[in-house]
Amino acid sequence: MSLDWITHPTKPLHKPSIQAAEERQEQLTKPPGSLGQLESIAIRLAGMQQSDRPSLEQAQITIFAADHGVVAEGVSAFPQSVTLEMVRNFSHGGAAICVLAQQLNAKMEIVNLGTVENDNTLDNIHNQPLGQGTANFTKQAAMTSEQLAQALEAGQQAVECTMETGTQIFIGGEMGIGNTTAASTLACAITGIPANQLAGPGTGLNQEGISHKVEVIQRALTLHQDHLDEPLEALRRLGGFEIAALVGSYITCAIKGLPVLVDGFITSVAALIATQINPGTKDWLIFAHQSAEPGHLLVLEALEATPLLDISMRLGEGSGAAITLPLLRLACALHNNMATFTEAGVSGKDA
Amino acid sequence: MSLDWITHPTKPLHKPSIQAAEERQEQLTKPPGSLGQLESIAIRLAGMQQSDRPSLEQAQITIFAADHGVVAEGVSAFPQSVTLEMVRNFSHGGAAICVLAQQLNAKMEIVNLGTVENDNTLDNIHNQPLGQGTANFTKQAAMTSEQLAQALEAGQQAVECTMETGTQIFIGGEMGIGNTTAASTLACAITGIPANQLAGPGTGLNQEGISHKVEVIQRALTLHQDHLDEPLEALRRLGGFEIAALVGSYITCAIKGLPVLVDGFITSVAALIATQINPGTKDWLIFAHQSAEPGHLLVLEALEATPLLDISMRLGEGSGAAITLPLLRLACALHNNMATFTEAGVSGKDA
Repeated sequence: MSLDWITHPTKPLHKPSIQAAEERQEQLTKPPGSLGQLESIAIRLAGMQQSDRPSLEQAQITIFAADHGVVAEGVSAFPQSVTLEMVRNFSHGGAAICVLAQQLNAKMEIVNLGTVENDNTLDNIHNQPLGQGTANFTKQAAMTSEQLAQALEAGQQAVECTMETGTQIFIGGEMGIGNTTAASTLACAITGIPANQLAGPGTGLNQEGISHKVEVIQRALTLHQDHLDEPLEALRRLGGFEIAALVGSYITCAIKGLPVLVDGFITSVAALIATQINPGTKDWLIFAHQSAEPGHLLVLEALEATPLLDISMRLGEGSGAAITLPLLRLACALHNNMATFTEAGVSGKDA
Repeated sequence: MSLDWITHPTKPLHKPSIQAAEERQEQLTKPPGSLGQLESIAIRLAGMQQSDRPSLEQAQITIFAADHGVVAEGVSAFPQSVTLEMVRNFSHGGAAICVLAQQLNAKMEIVNLGTVENDNTLDNIHNQPLGQGTANFTKQAAMTSEQLAQALEAGQQAVECTMETGTQIFIGGEMGIGNTTAASTLACAITGIPANQLAGPGTGLNQEGISHKVEVIQRALTLHQDHLDEPLEALRRLGGFEIAALVGSYITCAIKGLPVLVDGFITSVAALIATQINPGTKDWLIFAHQSAEPGHLLVLEALEATPLLDISMRLGEGSGAAITLPLLRLACALHNNMATFTEAGVSGKDA
């Protein structure tokens, strides 16, 4: 299975559309710059969509779920069964992201890439098992090369499918008990930041639990230390199926030209790996929010990213990105629908 | 004209609804606390609406417009004619707040409390002139006692009218060339913070313009210095018709029990005065965003308020509050529609 595709050139942003959008922002009936980040977002989206009138009506939320072998080390406040239980909750529409998708009129897909137990009876779930979760990466590599390639391709396929239906923005989400440990370990490997700075409570560990998590991460980093120079190999050894799928989805969005709204800690670690594998990916990423998970700030700094929101969310599932989508849509509406000074007969600055 | 009403008791929040909402948040299928400020907002709204299932579908945006005599001192980057020109733009639907109101399906009312010139031919504008703008407060009091009372009552009436139609949340906005100078002067008078810390660029002054604005504010504070102990008298001497109307509207919301979403710098100064006149008002105020106008942070600190957004907006018109409304609506939807652990058959923490 070839992975050549992950380094294909990303689509360049369309500079004439950016320039046209910048000029339009200067003409709208408001003090220049007074819409703050809503202006820069609209201008970036214009460049991504090759249009001076960007639109995000058609949004896709894709959640990748999987289990993690490292949970055997006792790193989560919730039992491993919760991954599949939450997949069921997604199926029945009871999870936070389901409520948000409905309110936002967004399409939603759930891809189960491998939980310890499976349930083939669930509606609205795309079962694509690559194993019964990853292996325990404190003892061996989390994934085989084959599993890594399949997970990356699962992300690619999810994006390619949704683009056929006219999707204008992609939100990736994740569900997997233990995946803040996997993401923290990966982030340590990629950035060199020590585990005791990056590891946090995840779904709700106390201080003792965090100390234990740090020790587990340190053991994994020691075991794999001679093989972490390449981000792809770090991902194989320390990642998870859902994290690799997110990496594949983000890179595909950048190659095909679909804006991405990045969620929280785990998705930002996937974004960091995606940009290390294929740096042009960065152009296509809009960062939604800063999570309460303390490592997120460090990962955002490594990405040189400034997210829009900071409201202490730490749920995952793509929920922070979904919460941010209305701001982006309103940024587009303002850009597209406000009157210009000339149209409205309003005097300009220092007139 | 009696102003007794402005110190009437505010409506207490409904504690049983707050407790029921808190208990519900603990049962929803997410790690406790993981929705961050969306949880606390839903709980506060439950207490305001006396319901454990809060809703903000029916939103009211009311913009108060007026001119300011202090503009004669050369304190704005835009000419005074822009106030009425923007009222026209509101009438025709071209301003930022019009676009936002339409996208949010919010009701919108524009109240012109007195511009230097008037235009009675405009649709959708409620003309209620209290004068051709305020007097220049570097030379005399901005308002007469009668004008102050009328402006406060204009705010009261706007809220009482909209409550009759089932409004669930109130957003006040403002338009008035020169009103960051009035608001900054008021904030200096109320907080004791020096003008050179509070005054900022407003619609777009350069550094020289800001220095001049500081000097104008200092002159006004010196002129009125013996009469600034009472917030109502400070408002009369240094405020504007639209600022006083906002004060009246916020106090009325708190007395009648309608949640308020406070916008930016000028509205926060109005909120500060409202809470000084009638401290219970504070319970009913939700702070939307931190403006790029530097004085806003100081006013928020005086209010002990933490807004939800910080995206460098500085437009006024209620636009920052409008941008924030979808977050509050989604907070309600999550609170109301997510499954509980029991309903979804999901294991709890440390199960």
